[in-house]
Amino acid sequence: MNYPTGIKKSHNQIINYSHRGMTLEDDINETNSYYRDKDLAYIYKKPTPIKVTKVDFRKDRTSTIKEAFYMEPSTTDYNGIYKGYYIDFEAKETKNKTSFPLANIHKHQLKHLENITKHGGIGFIIVRFSVLNKTYLLKAEDLFSFTKDNDRKSIPLTFFESKGYLIKEKYRPRLDYLNVVDDFLEVKNG
Amino acid sequence: MNYPTGIKKSHNQIINYSHRGMTLEDDINETNSYYRDKDLAYIYKKPTPIKVTKVDFRKDRTSTIKEAFYMEPSTTDYNGIYKGYYIDFEAKETKNKTSFPLANIHKHQLKHLENITKHGGIGFIIVRFSVLNKTYLLKAEDLFSFTKDNDRKSIPLTFFESKGYLIKEKYRPRLDYLNVVDDFLEVKNG
Repeated sequence: MNYPTGIKKSHNQIINYSHRGMTLEDDINETNSYYRDKDLAYIYKKPTPIKVTKVDFRKDRTSTIKEAFYMEPSTTDYNGIYKGYYIDFEAKETKNKTSFPLANIHKHQLKHLENITKHGGIGFIIVRFSVLNKTYLLKAEDLFSFTKDNDRKSIPLTFFESKGYLIKEKYRPRLDYLNVVDDFLEVKNG
Repeated sequence: MNYPTGIKKSHNQIINYSHRGMTLEDDINETNSYYRDKDLAYIYKKPTPIKVTKVDFRKDRTSTIKEAFYMEPSTTDYNGIYKGYYIDFEAKETKNKTSFPLANIHKHQLKHLENITKHGGIGFIIVRFSVLNKTYLLKAEDLFSFTKDNDRKSIPLTFFESKGYLIKEKYRPRLDYLNVVDDFLEVKNG
């Protein structure tokens, strides 16, 4: 079994999962990898879009990119399939203790999540309040009900507490967000 | 209305769609863009995975990447949602006139398509025989029935002719592959 870097485990040892210095992206990538290993879901992070402007071409597939620039992503970072459903989400961390600044999510990413939801997909955001060490899943529908009713530039923590789902952090998978998705699939189908 | 580069159109003009020098990727990107404009489907090409090794960081979001390398993709190039279904495919061109060399698709991409199909998604490959100017959609299930029964390193054109679906090329969208997907969704649901 592989343990995350820097963590040793014995049967009598209690591990504090909350302060491992792992980023939200690390946690989600590890969780998605766990889901794939267990043949539960196939959800991947999309590569960062990069515009390549200069390349040293070589025939042996080892071309070196000499100049390139980061581009703004046109969609969300994660998508894939779970129980036949199309899954699509964006994940963000904030150091803010009382609200999540909406500037963290691009307008076209919100539009993308809206399109996905309209076409029968399951869209959401995962937001970690890193100082509070709390990670919430907020369904796209609830996100839009907030943005449509409010001119506010941030979503208060209280909104996540009332409408979002707190994702439990554990050892493996680190951030079992599909457990939460199961909850609202049950409501949808039941 | 925007016309593809190098093509002018008038009402009396007949356009030869077959020799525009557009790549398969261009055609699929334009088609996906058409589907989005018409609110029919949200299918995107994933960015090319690139490993960045040197960056000139700047605060104003204009960091320049000074050294980077192309990585092997872990999944297929295209995915998204259509009529609530998770769609996933790989697209390849070949200059070969009689068969499609399987070396064009990585083993882990085939495995990925198999996982997707098993979990209720719609997986396929789009293969263009560029010299013949014919583009086929082959369902993942048929692709696997071929690879499981054969040790061959290529799929003969005749297999595409019997099991695949010929995609009609037209003006807009250039390569209406969802028209073909509709055909087998009908079989699935009807």
